Amino acid sequence: IGHPIFKSNKFYGLLPPPGVVIGLAYNDYGGSILYIESTQSSHFNEGRGEVKVTGQLGDVMKESTMIAQTFAKNFLNKHFSNDENVTRYLETHNLHIHFPEGAVKKDGPSAGITITSAMISLALGKSVPQDIAMTGEISLNGKVLAIGGVKEKTMAAAREGVSKLIFPKANERDVNDLPAYIKEGLQFYFVEDYQDVFKVLFPEVKIQQ
Amino acid sequence: IGHPIFKSNKFYGLLPPPGVVIGLAYNDYGGSILYIESTQSSHFNEGRGEVKVTGQLGDVMKESTMIAQTFAKNFLNKHFSNDENVTRYLETHNLHIHFPEGAVKKDGPSAGITITSAMISLALGKSVPQDIAMTGEISLNGKVLAIGGVKEKTMAAAREGVSKLIFPKANERDVNDLPAYIKEGLQFYFVEDYQDVFKVLFPEVKIQQ
Amino acid sequence: IGHPIFKSNKFYGLLPPPGVVIGLAYNDYGGSILYIESTQSSHFNEGRGEVKVTGQLGDVMKESTMIAQTFAKNFLNKHFSNDENVTRYLETHNLHIHFPEGAVKKDGPSAGITITSAMISLALGKSVPQDIAMTGEISLNGKVLAIGGVKEKTMAAAREGVSKLIFPKANERDVNDLPAYIKEGLQFYFVEDYQDVFKVLFPEVKIQQ
Repeated sequence: IGHPIFKSNKFYGLLPPPGVVIGLAYNDYGGSILYIESTQSSHFNEGRGEVKVTGQLGDVMKESTMIAQTFAKNFLNKHFSNDENVTRYLETHNLHIHFPEGAVKKDGPSAGITITSAMISLALGKSVPQDIAMTGEISLNGKVLAIGGVKEKTMAAAREGVSKLIFPKANERDVNDLPAYIKEGLQFYFVEDYQDVFKVLFPEVKIQQ
Repeated sequence: IGHPIFKSNKFYGLLPPPGVVIGLAYNDYGGSILYIESTQSSHFNEGRGEVKVTGQLGDVMKESTMIAQTFAKNFLNKHFSNDENVTRYLETHNLHIHFPEGAVKKDGPSAGITITSAMISLALGKSVPQDIAMTGEISLNGKVLAIGGVKEKTMAAAREGVSKLIFPKANERDVNDLPAYIKEGLQFYFVEDYQDVFKVLFPEVKIQQ
Repeated sequence: IGHPIFKSNKFYGLLPPPGVVIGLAYNDYGGSILYIESTQSSHFNEGRGEVKVTGQLGDVMKESTMIAQTFAKNFLNKHFSNDENVTRYLETHNLHIHFPEGAVKKDGPSAGITITSAMISLALGKSVPQDIAMTGEISLNGKVLAIGGVKEKTMAAAREGVSKLIFPKANERDVNDLPAYIKEGLQFYFVEDYQDVFKVLFPEVKIQQ
């Protein structure tokens, strides 16, 4: 019957470069993991915090990127005031954020915490391990709001060998409703504020309160 | 019955100027080679890394050019830090990238590694021999993702006398499935990361790790 | 039976001002000559190489003008490096390129070499005699690609008293297929690279290799 049609969407090893985070998406065909890649987009021309976005994003996701950028700047400014390189990073560098695969249209607000994490990972110069995936809308002050497709996203994560899942606290009951066999081997973190997300991704980094 | 209708799409000799690379494309009528030409677009006005794109590109291919540009800058910055002319080239020159033939509408992400190679060839001032053709989507950090039309693209390359083909590693199984007569005389390189592409195109250039 | 319906499209004498070149176009009604006029568009405001285009051009022809501009700059920069006035002309002057007649919609890539010649004629300050007409798509590095409507364009040129025709080399076989009576009194030049066009238009100008 030939090769298995299904192929993994994963194309990074366990520890990708800083700025790469795994999100969770779903559509009519089910769930899938979704990489978000962010890098510096210039090295010599003076950076001004401009963000270039690619990956066929719809309007809501473009705005989600703007929200994530503003919040990430404020988050770093508030919690890393003793380290100017970190606090100034997102304002003195131009970034490019890409949502592979290039031809797939993507929209919706649920990549908010994922985009935020990609930028913060880049600013800190710290990788996010690829056994973690996340999904959650983010508000301008970092509150994490409910999303849809909990079942599809959970199944997609399990299928791709992702073991740690970050979901909004508001979706805890949806996860609890899922049959046990779907959740087998998976560790869930339910978050209300971006600080909670940060602690899962960068447990070794102490942040100023 | 008059002249053969089919004519070659090749219009460069074996060694074109730097900045010219052969890609592979396909549509409902089959595969074809696709030149990607890149040149400096100004000499006196101070360059700022702006990129002009022509060739009737659709949205996905325009974004693919943005991704290739960002990645090429980061690739040169990382691997040629001892040569400022190279690392600064894509930020201190304005470029024009053209996808002949001018009237044919083109779209899709699979020219990613080809566009990247055209810019890097230009920045290094090194030509890419015309017996090499390539196809592959590129991610923002240089991962090479799967493409479609493997059979059509392979047949087009063979028809045009291209002997070396660079395909994504994820398409190796599709190539293996092709009947032997199609692959006769062709050398395949399966790549996962842009560094693999670079080694095929510029074997004599040592890059810093 | 009144005036002859057919009237000539020619409205310049044998030697027009620099920047005016005759192209060849065709549509469902047959072929016609097509003037391309280019002039400086400002004298006091500092020129930056901006190009204004009029004549109801479609997208492909607008891109063809961008390609011609980039190539013309590189051509002058490469072959006239001892004359800064020439090499800097297209970057330190704002131009206006017009394709009369104003109400006729025009599109397609086949005016590439014509637009290029109009700009180079302007930069050199040398007129192009009106007994020459040309047609050919141009690539970013000056390769001349095949066009359509060879018969219609040849008949239009003959009808207008144009005696020298520049066609792409790739169309030589189409010209050879034309009946002799159509080609009577016409001189054909088949070109593969813009340098070949240049030599026909400006035989007295020696260019640096």
